[in-house]
Amino acid sequence: MKRYLISELKSKMEEEVFISGWVHKIRKLSKITFLVLRDRSGLIQLVLDPKLHDIKGLKLESVISVKGLVKGSDNKISDIEVQVLDLHVISYALEDLPISINGDQAEGNIDTRLNNRVISLRNPKTNAIFNVQSVLVQGFIEFLKSEDFTQVFTPKIVAEGAEGGTALFTVKYFEKIAYLAQSPQFYKQMLVGAGFERVFEVGQVYRAEEHNTLRHLNEYVSLDLEMGFIDDEIDIMEMERKLLIYMFSKVKSECGNQLQLLDADIPVIGSNIPALRLSEAIEILKLKYGKTELSTDLDPEGERLIGDYAKEFLNSDLLFLTHYPRSKRPMYTMPCGEELTHSFDLLYNGLEITTGGQRIHNYQMLIDNMIYKGLNPDNYTGYLDTFKFGMMPHGGLAIGLERLTAQLLGFKNVRDTTLFPRDRERMTP
Amino acid sequence: MKRYLISELKSKMEEEVFISGWVHKIRKLSKITFLVLRDRSGLIQLVLDPKLHDIKGLKLESVISVKGLVKGSDNKISDIEVQVLDLHVISYALEDLPISINGDQAEGNIDTRLNNRVISLRNPKTNAIFNVQSVLVQGFIEFLKSEDFTQVFTPKIVAEGAEGGTALFTVKYFEKIAYLAQSPQFYKQMLVGAGFERVFEVGQVYRAEEHNTLRHLNEYVSLDLEMGFIDDEIDIMEMERKLLIYMFSKVKSECGNQLQLLDADIPVIGSNIPALRLSEAIEILKLKYGKTELSTDLDPEGERLIGDYAKEFLNSDLLFLTHYPRSKRPMYTMPCGEELTHSFDLLYNGLEITTGGQRIHNYQMLIDNMIYKGLNPDNYTGYLDTFKFGMMPHGGLAIGLERLTAQLLGFKNVRDTTLFPRDRERMTP
Repeated sequence: MKRYLISELKSKMEEEVFISGWVHKIRKLSKITFLVLRDRSGLIQLVLDPKLHDIKGLKLESVISVKGLVKGSDNKISDIEVQVLDLHVISYALEDLPISINGDQAEGNIDTRLNNRVISLRNPKTNAIFNVQSVLVQGFIEFLKSEDFTQVFTPKIVAEGAEGGTALFTVKYFEKIAYLAQSPQFYKQMLVGAGFERVFEVGQVYRAEEHNTLRHLNEYVSLDLEMGFIDDEIDIMEMERKLLIYMFSKVKSECGNQLQLLDADIPVIGSNIPALRLSEAIEILKLKYGKTELSTDLDPEGERLIGDYAKEFLNSDLLFLTHYPRSKRPMYTMPCGEELTHSFDLLYNGLEITTGGQRIHNYQMLIDNMIYKGLNPDNYTGYLDTFKFGMMPHGGLAIGLERLTAQLLGFKNVRDTTLFPRDRERMTP
Repeated sequence: MKRYLISELKSKMEEEVFISGWVHKIRKLSKITFLVLRDRSGLIQLVLDPKLHDIKGLKLESVISVKGLVKGSDNKISDIEVQVLDLHVISYALEDLPISINGDQAEGNIDTRLNNRVISLRNPKTNAIFNVQSVLVQGFIEFLKSEDFTQVFTPKIVAEGAEGGTALFTVKYFEKIAYLAQSPQFYKQMLVGAGFERVFEVGQVYRAEEHNTLRHLNEYVSLDLEMGFIDDEIDIMEMERKLLIYMFSKVKSECGNQLQLLDADIPVIGSNIPALRLSEAIEILKLKYGKTELSTDLDPEGERLIGDYAKEFLNSDLLFLTHYPRSKRPMYTMPCGEELTHSFDLLYNGLEITTGGQRIHNYQMLIDNMIYKGLNPDNYTGYLDTFKFGMMPHGGLAIGLERLTAQLLGFKNVRDTTLFPRDRERMTP
């Protein structure tokens, strides 16, 4: 018999259906038993006669299949229910659950929930996070494909770090030592120069940072793009604006149920995302918020406050900060005058979700900038060679997928928006 | 002025256009100079008067932009050309190219081409490979999304290997030792059990295998799927058949130019992909090809020969082999009787591109099978716990992206279909 999803049952009123899923709740009355069944599409109340259907020993989260009749109902979950004709246990849960998941949230603090990740993900709200994340990624891919980008896969086992050798995980690569890529930065630039002109990558990156904060992971998914024949970083910012409009509207149209469950609002992006120079932002923080200690970058509190400012005075959840100083940007960043760069961050509700900018495309300028940053050009010959053989003005950006998801859905901890996070303390499950 | 792509010029006859790209060829006659310009969309001949446009010092692969007039022509590349009005050099190539790329192929053997990867990728044929690969991946994603799969990202830094501890790369993870994931096997099963029911992943996997062959990489892209509520492995094979039909037809409709350039044929997949039991295949190899040494698996020559057999006698480029022995399959594979398993490989033109099958979903059976395989269940508690709390029959498969691309486009070496391959000897560029 064909299995129906719970979400398909509304159109099957008074019909006999076959459904399968997990036992989400059990409520036994004297003459009647109510189960709530959960599948990937939702929840439904099952009604059964305990004299006809023996469910002794059936624990929560056992997997069952049911043949039954769809009926109207006024239960809390839905305006339909299923009257059970046959019930078959596919897989008994062998033990009581370590954490309860059939309440509003999965039970326990973040560590408990992550220690029991397979269980906690079964909570419908928790599960919904990753349906939304999946759609965000597909929106990223679809939009960039429509803009003639090529999807690429670049190695994560690398011989040199993109950002200068700090915070790298080492890998024993046969007789050699290699590193886990901190970003696809070098490779995506090289591929723009290799004739693709426009490339994107969806892939994991690795940061061996010691600190353990709510906003950092040691392995995360980076949504990267890089494009050639630009005028300057403004082209990249404009591409990101259009990209986010597409991604957000896709989530809105495909994840209505999940957004409702998570009580999340999708921000409206207009014809313009407000932008401030970093120096302007620092000035605003000083004058309006009494935050006086910043000079060349924002700290997390500064990001949060300038996010509040953007919301209150610029009516935007999103805010570009531009013209970061050369001292704070990597050697490949295109300078803008003596002190500044053609670079930007994008803040979303007061958290940086993107770093981007124009890159240096001139070979000699790149060497000079490496030296200016105290780096030895001899360590970057493979990358540098790209710029010897014809390279156009180009730039790009990277969006942290877990951070974007967290901000979109209102989570403070990026571990909540990561299936199996890796941090300073955690490498299981 | 708006930049046009070369592919857009046919509709601009007699109009003034602005185009940009790399100098692919230079041919100087006494009174006229022909350049071939290359951008991501193709090639075009430029015609210019050397008295009006000084191109002294302009080496091949310099990046230029040109304002010019689109005219009819009978040159070798196209039936149009551009008469140059203005020419601007965006980026001079500083040196002569290490390898020539404007012939039919990029110059040199595979090592030379990989050592000069950014240059060799500029060869239109080489570049086309990765446009096709990009579309294959997008076809994979689109089809599975239409089948209600959720795209997931699982950690590549793991505490234990999925296949039993051999051929793992080690990572120094702060004070601990971790490994690079050989496959997302455990995680995708766990996520099926975590309520998603159907998941897929596009991500890199790592095999620390010592051998250096034409068909192996130490880092490759695995297209993984896993789905629950199946009857057996036949459901997975049928999903793969429909998946490949979708992926191939997408490549056919979107990559016409690339397929023509690469002289590649897309196989037609009918309502059925032929399947042989492994034991039948071994018998055929013995009787028809005199290959007598095989007993529990095929070697590369056996795969090639049975691929020939499928082509000649079953009229198919694709062939499923089924019922691999338990001794040859990992501990999570569902047994089929005492000796065999509910598993399959898919061969494409005589090369294995997929391994898949039904998995064990019963907790005790899984423990027993671990012991049968000589493994200690205590080393797999995180994974095993999944099966304690309700798990349905499920299965899945993994397709090697580089192998699939190689077979589709007729390459013998998977390094040809990898942007930046990692093998026993190579970790740069």
